[in-house]
Parts: sequence; C-alpha cells; structure tokens
Amino acid sequence: MSRITALETTDIRFPTSLSLDGSDAMNPDPDYSAAYAVIRTDAADGVEGHAFVFTIGRGNDVQVAAIDALAGHLVGREIEPMLDDMGATFREIIGDSQLRWLGPEKGVMHMAIGAVTNALWDIKAKRAGLPLWQLLARMTPEELVALVDFRYLTNALTPEDALEILRAGVAGRDEREAELLATGYPGYTTSPGWLGYSDEKLERLALEALADGFTQIKLKVGADLDDDIRRFRKAREVVGPDFPIAIDANQRWEVSEAIEWVKALAEFNPAWVEEPTSPDDILGHAEIARGIAPIRVATGEHAQNRMIFKQLLQANAIEVMQIDAVRVAGVNENIANLLLAAKFGVPVCPHAGGVGLCEAVQHLSMFDFVAVTGTLEGRLIEFVDHLHEHFVVPTDIQGGSYMPPTAPGVSMEMKAESIAKYTWKGEHVID
Amino acid sequence: MSRITALETTDIRFPTSLSLDGSDAMNPDPDYSAAYAVIRTDAADGVEGHAFVFTIGRGNDVQVAAIDALAGHLVGREIEPMLDDMGATFREIIGDSQLRWLGPEKGVMHMAIGAVTNALWDIKAKRAGLPLWQLLARMTPEELVALVDFRYLTNALTPEDALEILRAGVAGRDEREAELLATGYPGYTTSPGWLGYSDEKLERLALEALADGFTQIKLKVGADLDDDIRRFRKAREVVGPDFPIAIDANQRWEVSEAIEWVKALAEFNPAWVEEPTSPDDILGHAEIARGIAPIRVATGEHAQNRMIFKQLLQANAIEVMQIDAVRVAGVNENIANLLLAAKFGVPVCPHAGGVGLCEAVQHLSMFDFVAVTGTLEGRLIEFVDHLHEHFVVPTDIQGGSYMPPTAPGVSMEMKAESIAKYTWKGEHVID
Repeated sequence: MSRITALETTDIRFPTSLSLDGSDAMNPDPDYSAAYAVIRTDAADGVEGHAFVFTIGRGNDVQVAAIDALAGHLVGREIEPMLDDMGATFREIIGDSQLRWLGPEKGVMHMAIGAVTNALWDIKAKRAGLPLWQLLARMTPEELVALVDFRYLTNALTPEDALEILRAGVAGRDEREAELLATGYPGYTTSPGWLGYSDEKLERLALEALADGFTQIKLKVGADLDDDIRRFRKAREVVGPDFPIAIDANQRWEVSEAIEWVKALAEFNPAWVEEPTSPDDILGHAEIARGIAPIRVATGEHAQNRMIFKQLLQANAIEVMQIDAVRVAGVNENIANLLLAAKFGVPVCPHAGGVGLCEAVQHLSMFDFVAVTGTLEGRLIEFVDHLHEHFVVPTDIQGGSYMPPTAPGVSMEMKAESIAKYTWKGEHVID
Repeated sequence: MSRITALETTDIRFPTSLSLDGSDAMNPDPDYSAAYAVIRTDAADGVEGHAFVFTIGRGNDVQVAAIDALAGHLVGREIEPMLDDMGATFREIIGDSQLRWLGPEKGVMHMAIGAVTNALWDIKAKRAGLPLWQLLARMTPEELVALVDFRYLTNALTPEDALEILRAGVAGRDEREAELLATGYPGYTTSPGWLGYSDEKLERLALEALADGFTQIKLKVGADLDDDIRRFRKAREVVGPDFPIAIDANQRWEVSEAIEWVKALAEFNPAWVEEPTSPDDILGHAEIARGIAPIRVATGEHAQNRMIFKQLLQANAIEVMQIDAVRVAGVNENIANLLLAAKFGVPVCPHAGGVGLCEAVQHLSMFDFVAVTGTLEGRLIEFVDHLHEHFVVPTDIQGGSYMPPTAPGVSMEMKAESIAKYTWKGEHVID
C-alpha cells in the first residue's frame, strides 16, 4: 500500500498572444496556459501523476486554486483502493456537495476535478505499464461501465445500453489495436486557419498541410464576412475543390446570423461548421442545424459536461461531436461522452490544439476505435503543430495521422525545464 | 472624478452544517458561506460597494480567488464612466476573452463577475441615494435596455422586444411603487421543510408560517419516497387542503424517476415541483413538465446564465422561473432574465435563503413589479428566516410580505463584526 503525499500545482503560461497563434473571432489574444497538477505518493516506484487544465491566460491562477481545493480528497489517503475503483473515486469527488455548489458540474471547479481525475489515471496507467488508450481498451465492458456516472443520463443512455455497445466492441479489439499501431489515427489540422494570419501564411500552411498528408484543414471564421469569403476562396483554390475544409466560428454568432453567414459561405462547401453560437444553446444549435442542412454542425470543446452532449444528441443539433480532454471532469466523464456518441451514431472528432490537448485527447479517440465504435469512418483528431516540444511524450504525427503513444500514462506530463521556464511570475517569458 | 482604489475580498463561512439548517436531498451538510467583495474608491463620500457570491462551504476560497482575478478591470480606473454606463462596464468584464475561457459565462468565474457587478451597483445606488429596486424602476426603458447583453438571446428576445415590454410597464409605475411601499411583496417560506428536521419541527414551523402570514410553504423531497409521503401528508394536515405547498427535489432525480416520484406525491397537490433533475437538462425538464402536467415545474437557482433560462422558456420546460441574485453575472444579467420571463409570460419566483440571498434578490422582484411586468399575480419571493442578523439592512418581513428596503444600495452589505467573526481561519466558529 502507498499513500498520496502531495497534490502540487503550478501556474504555467506561454506567451502565445505575442505571435497571434491561436487567434480566432472570440479569442483574439490567447496566452496558452496550463493549471498543472502533480500527484505524488510514497510508493517506492516513484511514479507521479501529471495532468492539467488548459486555459488561455488570465484566470489560470483561479484554476490552480480550484485544483488545490481538491487536496482534501487525495492527500494522506491510500491510493490503491482509489485506483482499483476509479468509478467510485470519481463519483466521490464529483459528489462533494459543497464543491458541487460551485458548478454544479461545470466551469472552473469541474475542470479542476478533471485534472485530478486525469492525474490519477496517469498513475494507474504508468503502474500498469500501458498508455491510457491501451489500458482502457483492454478493460472488460463491465469494468468500463463501472467507470461511468450515469446520473442524469438514463433517459438517453443506461448502463445496459453501455454494456451492449461495449460488448459489441469486444470482437476485433486485437486486430484494431494492431491496425492502430501500424497506421495510426487520422488527423486534420487547424494550423493554416487562425484569424490573425495573413493570406500568404494561410496559403503556405494549407499547402504544407496537404503535403504532410492531412485529410482536412480548418479555417477560423466569424469576425468579418468579406474576409471569410476571401480566405475561404483562397484556401479552396489552394487545396482544390474536393479537399475537406471545416470552418469554426468560436461561438461568435446569433442563431439567425449563423444560418445566414454559413449560407454565404456554402459555395465553398464547408466540411462542418463548428461552434456557431453559445455552447450552452442546445436549441439554438438544433435550429442552426435545420437551417444549414446538409452542411453539418459540430461542437463540444466548450460543452461543460455529459448533460450538454446528451441534449445536443437528443435534439439532433450536431452531426460531429467534439470532445475535449480537459473541459469536462476527465477520463471518466469522457467515457460517458464517447458512449453517448456511440449510442446516437454520431462520430467524435475531438478538439485539440492549445497546449497538450493533442497529447491528451488522442488516447480517447484511440480507445473509442479499439473498444467502443470500432470504426474510423468520418473520424479525425484535430492537430495543431504547436508547443509539443514541452511534453515528455509529444504527439507523433506521420503522414497526417496520430501514431499511438506507447509510453505508459496519459501523455500530459510536461518537461521539467519547460515547467520551470514558463511558471508564471507576473510577466511573460519572451523566447 | 474618483478612482477605484481597492477590490477587497474575504472568505466568510457560517457553521450551518452543525444544525442541519439548509439540509436537502443533494446538500446534506451545507456551511453557508460568502465570497465577499468590497470595492473602495478615493471619493470623499466614502461610499463602498459591497456584494458577495453565496457558496456552501468548501471551495469558498476558490470563489474568492476568482473575484480577486477581476481586480485588473477595476483598480486604478475612474469609476464615474463605469457607473454611468453599466451596460458597457458589464460587457467589458463579461467579454474578457481570457477569463471567458474558464466558463464561458458559467460557474466560479461567472459568479465572480456577478459579485463585482453587484458591488458596482451598490456604489451606484448608494450615490443615487436609492435602494437598487427603486433606482432601476426609475430608469427609462432605453436606459434599462442598454444594461442588457443581448448576445445569444436574439432568437427569443431582441432589444426591440425588451423596449416594448418596458414601455408598456411605464404607465402606473408611481402607483405600483406606492403600493409596494404600503403593502410589500408577498413571500413564501421554506423554513419548515428542510430534510434534516424532525416531523415535530416541521409541524411547528408550518404552523408558525401560517401564523406569520406566509401564503405558501415548501418541503424538501427526493431522498426517500416513504419519508416524503409521510412528511407531505403531515404538512398537508397541518395547513389544510387548500394552502399551497411546493416541493423541491434539489436535482436529485433522473427524468423518469422525477415523473414517477411526483405522481406518487400528486394526491397532496404540490404547488410546484422544483429542481427535479440536473439544472443543465433543458430537454429533461421539458419531458418532466409534460409528464406531470398540470403540476408545474420550477427551476433556476442553478441556471448558470441567461441562455439556460432562454431555452427553459422556449422548450416550455418551466411554469415558474426562479432567478437567483448571485448565480449569474449580477444585476445586468438578471434584468435579461426578468425580460425573458416577461416575454414568455412566466412568473418569476426568486430563489432565496442561504446567507443574504433574501436581502439581495428582493430588489429584482420589486423592480419587476414596478417597471417590467407590473403584476404580483402568481409571484412570491422565497424566504428563510436565517442569518439575517448579519446584514446592515436585513429583510423586513411583515405579515408574510417583504417590505421594500428604503436604504440606498443593494442590501448585500454585512455588518463589520459579522465579517470579522466569521472570516474563515480553517475551522468553524461555534456560537
């Protein structure tokens, strides 16, 4: 037996606003940041759990404070019973009624629970000697169902539904694992499309994306329609008439505005329209989906929890579901999200980018392929080539595909020297 | 001109868990707490703005940190331009893209913006020499519309709709103000109904509620059906067959469970069913509303922002809308909420209780009566007789009605000695 000795947190901020990397219609000057958590134990193996919440600058200190507030659920406790029943561990923390008031199950406190949950999974996976995706994909359907909190889901997804989905996914697991290790999971890239980039940079990066083997690119839109038309036309000229180009409005529009704006861009054949309006507006997304059909609506990077995904699916509001590794309460809640998507037959194309989101979320899609839906059809993981150098196990992209990580853990661990260099001291480190 | 010199915060916690006051099916042991904010200026008038976020204990420090994170929007700035255009001030803070990422517009960061917004309104009202309700009720429709952020609302409520509602409310303002000052705003009480209370205490407090002139009581339900039946029967016997008794499940149920449970209590004629399931589940509330009609569904104390209220109304999910003074981003967002309710013709019966929520929310209902809907029909403000002694201007309840505060400000200011005594030092003060 070993005990948790510490939950350590660090406020890490990268000066990305200085280069306009990551600029979009809602977020003109993000400073990609991490509220970083490390769980330590007194075990002789020296294994640590590393995870984080991604933020875009100011307020990262608030997110750190929220992670700190969870120490009482961890420090001093024997860790093995917690790791052996991660479902019960998750439900205990998510069920802390006093902390729950601060959401419930949304925003800063919910994301903090996600960081702690993911850090525990990091220890569990490292101790098992497996990357997270493989650890999950080798669990039995019963073990996986026990990880999920079905509260508020049962009118759309019951434990029995989940078991049925997962049992159907058992056949062929080994073959899919081998396929994944051989050829990877397809990705698409948003690198060309940031609003702050010049047309020339857009063109150059779009050509690079093609050359690199990506099978889709994405453009940020929503600030100015004439600009969007010009940039979309330019991108379409560069990549040709049939190459998928998604667009992303980052919540910029009213419902009717979204419908009109997308119609004005329809001639360029968007692969999907992402975050057209408030992430809270389920009925609005459904109205937009009806208004722009057959163009597909995608959302999810700001969907606060499994209840929002449930409703987006119930309302036929999305045809592409975009989970995020750190917006919800970690691995456990994202397993619920994957099961909901599977139940409704909607493909999951995760949100990534930021700092470390690609590293983190790839495990979930790979688990989905091997053990849940068993298919890559219509599925892509977002990729942005940015800040990977700070991670101990960075993404390995080959021919536009994510090659599965083989190192044990959840891949959210940053290099010690990066943590030290970018720990926030009140001003930015200029590289 | 004067400048903001400080945004001071305090972590205040009352040991309410020791007496089971406030216990319900979801929150068995709340410690009513306030993340308390004071805005100071260098003006000669010495006026300070006081406001808070209500929490139930652990995590109150996180909420304080979130308020602290807003200092950059306040400290050092000239306050008069901010107070003169509270709509622009609100939109600036709510629009901080880096802080917005932490919600967006929900949870800890959103409530922190509410505290700061309300503290600014406290200064504005104190400088005007008016209680908040009267300050708002004397603004022109155009001035009121300028306070609202209509982003994401326009498919349900446009600025033109709001103007129309408010212009219709201009006639008779003086008469309604006089009526309010003479007879108050009707209240109902939850004091008898906490789950942790014995049947004898329930019976005694229900009789007291009748004697005090309240026109409705409320019982907490949802932990155990047999207990609920026994307690509801007891309450019904005590108050008679026609006296309104609402029930409140505090988010305890699944959708189908809510429908079955409420049907099992239907014989006792609940006035409404409050928070039957997740506050995020708009479609679930709508399903419950259809399933238990004609019994009415009420919710809102955990509705994170105006987009949730918009959808609850669009989906016909609620027949009673329960705003909370501190869950959303303050006075400005609650004006949007009142206008949405008016547009859809749904009565607002605010959530209160906790610590200081009665003091805070009464202003919004009174403003609604004088200048928005112009009616008290079907409207009640919740009242719990608890912790009022800590406020500089406590509620004044006469014959079961809230008598309008006449002291300038938003009524959220606590007594200095209460703040000093209950400032959190890591353990509870035992009275």
